[in-house]
Amino acid sequence: MYNIAITAGGTSENIDGVRKLTNVSTGSLGWNCLESVLNYFLSKDEANFHIHYVLTPTAFRGQLNDIQKKHVSFIEVTDAESVYNAVNDLTKNINITHFIHSMAISDFTFSYAVSVDNLAEEIAAYVNNGGDVSKEKLQELLTLPHSRNEEGAKISSSKPLIIGLKTTKKVISLIKENNKNTVLVGFKLLRNVGEDTLMEVSKKLTEKNECDFVFANELSQISGNEHTGILIADGIIVARPKGKRQIADAIVANMINN
Amino acid sequence: MYNIAITAGGTSENIDGVRKLTNVSTGSLGWNCLESVLNYFLSKDEANFHIHYVLTPTAFRGQLNDIQKKHVSFIEVTDAESVYNAVNDLTKNINITHFIHSMAISDFTFSYAVSVDNLAEEIAAYVNNGGDVSKEKLQELLTLPHSRNEEGAKISSSKPLIIGLKTTKKVISLIKENNKNTVLVGFKLLRNVGEDTLMEVSKKLTEKNECDFVFANELSQISGNEHTGILIADGIIVARPKGKRQIADAIVANMINN
Repeated sequence: MYNIAITAGGTSENIDGVRKLTNVSTGSLGWNCLESVLNYFLSKDEANFHIHYVLTPTAFRGQLNDIQKKHVSFIEVTDAESVYNAVNDLTKNINITHFIHSMAISDFTFSYAVSVDNLAEEIAAYVNNGGDVSKEKLQELLTLPHSRNEEGAKISSSKPLIIGLKTTKKVISLIKENNKNTVLVGFKLLRNVGEDTLMEVSKKLTEKNECDFVFANELSQISGNEHTGILIADGIIVARPKGKRQIADAIVANMINN
Repeated sequence: MYNIAITAGGTSENIDGVRKLTNVSTGSLGWNCLESVLNYFLSKDEANFHIHYVLTPTAFRGQLNDIQKKHVSFIEVTDAESVYNAVNDLTKNINITHFIHSMAISDFTFSYAVSVDNLAEEIAAYVNNGGDVSKEKLQELLTLPHSRNEEGAKISSSKPLIIGLKTTKKVISLIKENNKNTVLVGFKLLRNVGEDTLMEVSKKLTEKNECDFVFANELSQISGNEHTGILIADGIIVARPKGKRQIADAIVANMINN
């Protein structure tokens, strides 16, 4: 039995109910991977597979026919924490054989908002009252200032604002931790870098999270349906697919025949 | 000739190419207003009108038939600045008779990112080198720290981050400034407040920007197609519509018969 997990779309961290911190991702590469998996197995008359599709509300969602639908479960998530919980549950409860982790998950989530005004006043008072002006103490102050807005309070729209963000738990590291046999495909999107840097950063991602494959691409290589990048396994480029359809097919074929 | 402008959707401020600060808004109330305007005039065989529909990429966009299409121009915008420029051009170049300003525009745009680490170090060094520890000087430092990340630089995902935001130019104040004869409908969305506060805040919005109508609502009154609120003119509630269709019809009928 093949149990294939795919994550797709960009997460969204709540700031104050009307503002959000979002990660850009249409989710269309993830959807293409879902279609590729369906084609791969159904074209071989292999019915012994299931896709666990983890997606955000803004992720692209296409149409499936009745036969395809039987092979797909949808798991809806919103922010980084909800993805962490969903992937943790999934990889603990089901023997996931293959994992395509294409979702753009926020590295940060909202911690506090404070006006520049109020934070300056707090720091001035702290220093002028003889507070310890070491880097460590100031780090503490900046990690959660007393002058921050109360939770749920309206943010004044007329004054410069500071938003404090804390890091989120990494979802990708869960996958092999929970099941060392899962074949894992990671993704790396960088800006303004050449192939050397893409290879180098992908190597680090591979080592840190035990990825079997990394699909690495550069932001300027993506626009609409135009999309190129490199598929890397063991530090070697195994495919240079062009277009989302071909990228998805390359990922799925390499992953299943791993 | 009726020239009706409608803004719809939520803006999105770029942080670093892959992260964004967004305002929650589906744009469906704006689209309902567009449909109400079309119905209002076309049901009366009145063809002497045009709708200028300013929308963001994520705003809901429904289908129009060929007759309806002739009466609508679409103007696409992304961030707060692009809305400001589009509305400024529109209201200067065309005699807008009615303006429904339902877009959720960010009050803030990205100014800088800095790790808590680096900012703490900068403040410690500043103070320990005998810098002026007044509120004003610290405000200056926090408005644009020297230790901020270079523009376009990769944000390290493993350390707590501070994001500095600056205020954007208010779009709504442009409308009457550029054309005092435009009938203006403003919107106010608040959280966790009662009708008294909604009335009070709407009164301020009206005075500041010379709104002829304000549609005021509270976040918990909106979910999916469920939507209630109050339409206010001259400090008096003129309608309590329920549902986006009825809200749009109330806004359009009151506005045109003003």
